[in-house]
Amino acid sequence: MGKSLNMPLGSTIMLEDTHISLAHGNGGRYMRDLIEAVFVKHLNQNTSGVCLDTESDAVLLKDICGPIYTTVDGFAVHPLEFPGGDIGSLAVHGTINDLSVAGAIPKYLTLSAILEEGLEISVLDRVVQSFAAAARDAGVSVVAGDTKVVPRGNGGGIYFSVSGIGTVDDGLHLSMKHVLPGDVILVSGTVGDHGTAVMLAREAFGLQGDLPSDSASVLPLARCLSGIAGVHFLRDPTRGGLATVAQEISMATGLTIRLEEQYIPVSDQVSSVCEILGYDPLYLACEGRCVAIVQADIAEQVLSLWQATAEGKNSAIIGTVESGKQEVLLETAMGGVRRLEELEDDPLPRIC
Amino acid sequence: MGKSLNMPLGSTIMLEDTHISLAHGNGGRYMRDLIEAVFVKHLNQNTSGVCLDTESDAVLLKDICGPIYTTVDGFAVHPLEFPGGDIGSLAVHGTINDLSVAGAIPKYLTLSAILEEGLEISVLDRVVQSFAAAARDAGVSVVAGDTKVVPRGNGGGIYFSVSGIGTVDDGLHLSMKHVLPGDVILVSGTVGDHGTAVMLAREAFGLQGDLPSDSASVLPLARCLSGIAGVHFLRDPTRGGLATVAQEISMATGLTIRLEEQYIPVSDQVSSVCEILGYDPLYLACEGRCVAIVQADIAEQVLSLWQATAEGKNSAIIGTVESGKQEVLLETAMGGVRRLEELEDDPLPRIC
Repeated sequence: MGKSLNMPLGSTIMLEDTHISLAHGNGGRYMRDLIEAVFVKHLNQNTSGVCLDTESDAVLLKDICGPIYTTVDGFAVHPLEFPGGDIGSLAVHGTINDLSVAGAIPKYLTLSAILEEGLEISVLDRVVQSFAAAARDAGVSVVAGDTKVVPRGNGGGIYFSVSGIGTVDDGLHLSMKHVLPGDVILVSGTVGDHGTAVMLAREAFGLQGDLPSDSASVLPLARCLSGIAGVHFLRDPTRGGLATVAQEISMATGLTIRLEEQYIPVSDQVSSVCEILGYDPLYLACEGRCVAIVQADIAEQVLSLWQATAEGKNSAIIGTVESGKQEVLLETAMGGVRRLEELEDDPLPRIC
Repeated sequence: MGKSLNMPLGSTIMLEDTHISLAHGNGGRYMRDLIEAVFVKHLNQNTSGVCLDTESDAVLLKDICGPIYTTVDGFAVHPLEFPGGDIGSLAVHGTINDLSVAGAIPKYLTLSAILEEGLEISVLDRVVQSFAAAARDAGVSVVAGDTKVVPRGNGGGIYFSVSGIGTVDDGLHLSMKHVLPGDVILVSGTVGDHGTAVMLAREAFGLQGDLPSDSASVLPLARCLSGIAGVHFLRDPTRGGLATVAQEISMATGLTIRLEEQYIPVSDQVSSVCEILGYDPLYLACEGRCVAIVQADIAEQVLSLWQATAEGKNSAIIGTVESGKQEVLLETAMGGVRRLEELEDDPLPRIC
C-alpha cells in the first residue's frame, strides 16, 4: 500500500485543485498527481546517490553493509507553521535527532503523511519543501513515502510520521548504562524555546510573540564528540523538557541527578512567558537541544567543542550525577534545593 | 522524540483511565504508563532475538549485514475493527506485503500511533494485540514506536504509520522492467473483499453483512516463488484494486495489459454488493492478494505453487501482457472488450 516517492526528477505536473480532497488519497490519478506535484518535486533529491527505483513499494538501500539504527516519530504540531520552523522541518529534526543522540549517522528517512480533506495544498507544498531542505541540510535522503487522506474533521491538517535509518558511528559508545556517579551534565543551549514558541504562535492565553523555536539538527553536536573517551550518554530533550530527561536518567540508573538552576540557559522571552503563566521552563519542549552526560575530566573539553559550534554556542555545564537515591534535585538560584517531580497530567496544551 | 518500545517484559502496569487523554501524550508518567501497559505488553515479543535496548531513542539492529529494503505505510481505516481484521493486523499486513512483493524478507517494523483524545483504551489494547499477533505470525519484530495524542475532533480514533525493514531474498529478482510482452498475469485470490467488507462494516448505503476482509500476509506467496526463473514482477493490489495495479504496470512499461473477466475471482458476496451499488470490484481494495507477472512457460507452475498454499487456494491466471499501446483492456464475460480507465475522483468512501 506504500507508494514509492522515487519518481522521475523534474516533474512538471500542475494540480488543478487548491485544496486536498478525498480523491487525493484513493490510489488513482488525483493521488498520483499530488505525489508527483508536491512530494516528488521536493523530496526526490537523491542526496545519498542511492539508485532510485520508480516501480516498487519498497526501496532497496544498496549501500547498507552493517548494523543500522532505526527510529520512528510522529508529528502533530499545531499550528503547522510557527516562528523558527514548521511541521516539515520539525519532523526531520525530531527523527534525525533521535538517531544522532543514539550514536548513529542518519542516512535515510521515510515519510507517512496523513492529510485532512480541505487542507490548502499551498500549505502542504511549503512544509514538504521545508522537510526537503532540512533533510538536505542533514545529508539524509527521503526514500519512501505514503499519503492518506482523512475526511474533514478527522485530522489536524497534516500529521507526519517519519522513520529514520542510520549507520553506526564507531566513535560514539553511548548508553544509559555508562552513566556513573561523578559524571557531569551539559546542555547545548537555552531550554523551553520550542514549547514557548508554539504556545505564542497559537496566541494561547492571549499572548503573542515571535520567539523562534529551537527546532534544529543536533547531529553536529553528536558528531563533534565522536572519538572522545568518556562521553557516556546523549539525549535530546523534547516533550516534557529537560526535567523529563533528568527523570528518565534517574529512573534508569537509580542515581541522583542534581541540576543547578543558575547555570541552566533560559532565554529572557521564555522566562517572561513562564513567569506570566506560571510554567516551569524545565518542563517545556526543546527540539534542537542536546543533553550530554560525560566524565568530569572531559566536561570542559566537551563544553569548548560545543561552544565552538553554531548549534551549541550557549552550551553550559548544568549539573552532576551523584550516588544516592533515585531523584532529581534542583539547586535553585535562591540557594534552596527543590525536588523535580515526574511530569503528570498538566495544563499545557499539546505542543509537539 | 521517539520512544523506544523496548521496555522490560512482563509489565504489570494497570492504567487508571479507560479513555485516552491529552496527558497520555505529554512525555510524562501517564504516557509512560500507557506505553508500558499497552504497547510494550503486546509488542515486546523479541521474535528476532535482537538484543533489546531500553534506554535509547533509536534501536540498534545488530544482525543487519547487507543491503536492506525499507517501506512505509499509513493506516486510517474506519471502522477500526471490521470482519476479518482491524487497523492493527491491517497495518502489519500492509507493510510486510509491500516488502514481500519487492522481494524482501520482512524483519523489523516501527509503529507510530496518533491517538485521539477520548479513544477507549480497550479498543487500543485490542488492536495493538492484533498488531502483535500479525507481526508474530510473519516473523517480524516491532523494534521502535512513538505515541502522540491529538485533541478530540482532530483524529479518527487511531492512525497508525508503520515502517518496515527487510533483507534481500536472493531468489527473487523482481522489477517492472522485467515485464515483457507474452508474460502471463496471475492473481492469488478473489478481489475486492477488503473494500466491500469495510463498506459493509460501516453499514454504508444501508447495507449490512459480515463478509470478511482478505487482510493477510502475502509473504508465503512471494517466498514460494523464490528461486524460480521467470517470475518478473509481484504487486499487492490495495487502494484502487486490481485495475489500478494493471494501470500502473501499463503506464510503467508502455504495454497493453489484457485481463479476462471470466477468470478473475470475485466472491458471490462482493459481486452482489457491487451489483446493488454499481461498483466495479476490479477497483475495490484488497489487502491480502498478490498479482504476479511471469513468463508464459512457468505460469502453470506458479499457479500450482500458489494453489497449494492456504493464502492462494483461489489463485487464477487472469490475463496477459501484450505489445501494442499503453492501455488496460478487459475481455468481458459477455465477449466484448472494455477499456479500464485510471481511477479518478470517485464516490467511494475512503476505506483503507
